[in-house]
Amino acid sequence: MTTNQLVEEIRRKRSFLCIGLDVDLTRIPQHLLKEEDPVFAFNKAIIDATHHLAVAFKPNLAFYEAYGIKGLQALGKTIDYLNEKYPEIFTIADAKRGDIGNTSGMYAKAFFEDLNFDSVTVAPYMGKDSIEPFLAYENKHTILLALTSNAGAYDFQTQKVEGVELYKKVLEVSKGWKNGQNLMYVVGATKAEYLTEIRKIIPESFLLVPGVGAQGGSLQEVCDYGMNRKVGLLVNSSRGIIYASKGEDFTEAAAEKAKELQVQMAGFL
Amino acid sequence: MTTNQLVEEIRRKRSFLCIGLDVDLTRIPQHLLKEEDPVFAFNKAIIDATHHLAVAFKPNLAFYEAYGIKGLQALGKTIDYLNEKYPEIFTIADAKRGDIGNTSGMYAKAFFEDLNFDSVTVAPYMGKDSIEPFLAYENKHTILLALTSNAGAYDFQTQKVEGVELYKKVLEVSKGWKNGQNLMYVVGATKAEYLTEIRKIIPESFLLVPGVGAQGGSLQEVCDYGMNRKVGLLVNSSRGIIYASKGEDFTEAAAEKAKELQVQMAGFL
Repeated sequence: MTTNQLVEEIRRKRSFLCIGLDVDLTRIPQHLLKEEDPVFAFNKAIIDATHHLAVAFKPNLAFYEAYGIKGLQALGKTIDYLNEKYPEIFTIADAKRGDIGNTSGMYAKAFFEDLNFDSVTVAPYMGKDSIEPFLAYENKHTILLALTSNAGAYDFQTQKVEGVELYKKVLEVSKGWKNGQNLMYVVGATKAEYLTEIRKIIPESFLLVPGVGAQGGSLQEVCDYGMNRKVGLLVNSSRGIIYASKGEDFTEAAAEKAKELQVQMAGFL
Repeated sequence: MTTNQLVEEIRRKRSFLCIGLDVDLTRIPQHLLKEEDPVFAFNKAIIDATHHLAVAFKPNLAFYEAYGIKGLQALGKTIDYLNEKYPEIFTIADAKRGDIGNTSGMYAKAFFEDLNFDSVTVAPYMGKDSIEPFLAYENKHTILLALTSNAGAYDFQTQKVEGVELYKKVLEVSKGWKNGQNLMYVVGATKAEYLTEIRKIIPESFLLVPGVGAQGGSLQEVCDYGMNRKVGLLVNSSRGIIYASKGEDFTEAAAEKAKELQVQMAGFL
């Protein structure tokens, strides 16, 4: 999917919502455990109930790997379902990968070719040659961790590297990488006050913003400081939507929570 | 496995060799492609031929994920085979994971419980709460990227954070994390001259050292600057051993290459 197609979808749906599919079997409606593949059954139900309110879905790989081969089969079915039934949806493999060049090439193949995600999250610590194999894919998007939503972000990301915070250095340096136009960035909603500075460095890039909802970030602040002329934001909510109810009404409850966010987002567009 | 058990194995085998199982189907002997599971068939043959010369085996997850479900089944069979047939071998999931706390907990479960690896590699960018869920496992080891073997290491890792290179900051800060005694660190052999400084910060920790062989690092230098009183080194070679021959004699060729390294290592012990 091209960035322009994503922007068109955002305008059409009046939403820049990304829904995180972080499926924990202890938290889903228990009647689904009878299903042959409870993880996929849950995802399919959530996707069908909310696809018109969201522009992106983001499975976090950890939750699927924790269920072994079955979890990864559920992930494969989920991405196939999204690609077949809702090709207008932007898909994100939240994997936070990164390795030496030839090895990152294998990860890129796994996520962009075999699973056919539109994008994947990656970690910057290993530098340019660990990211460029992802960037080589045309119309695929590589979402680099910049400033994350967790407390540990203050351990290294906000430390000053030669006078500039590490996350800013990551933004500045990565812009110059080959096919850098295929980069998006992760910036946590819990650190919305940093967005003004971030937009000075990467005014045009899309940001994937986790941390609204359960983690306490403010949508208002994210929009005030982070929105650009092409919107430039994908705001993620996971637990607040997908676990809105543990009962038979879980799809209605999820749609209601997604609708609340979509209505707020429409107000900012 | 405890660190002391690992040290005993190193003394017994007179080797601190780790063999990287980075299986690329285009590079393995082509007669193996007839097998039902060529990746596992290759790994099993390499392990059987070299287990007495190495103390650790390290599959890199990227190579398995690139083959989808089949690749991950091959990984599962490989770790099960190692744990059942060679329980004295230290196993490393080279995965370079890291995410917010509750999500890292899922990765820790995947690698330490389900797959039952002795250790996993992790990336430091997201800080303390992204790593502590791994550290909570007793007698499991969390191998944190410090200074990697690739060129991209100079993009951020060697940049100065408040006067101290980022990789040193990572070493210093991580020492203080809860259960920090369960940490090991990745330090590339291509940067052996940094080892003296590294040993000032973490004199006792084990280091996983990639980059000897195909990447050009020197075993002599790694030992001169990195070895401590408990050896404290696991030196990895992947391609140089496992792809020593593409013919029917690939196991003999791999064993020969592993033996060369083991003999050199014995000289340093």
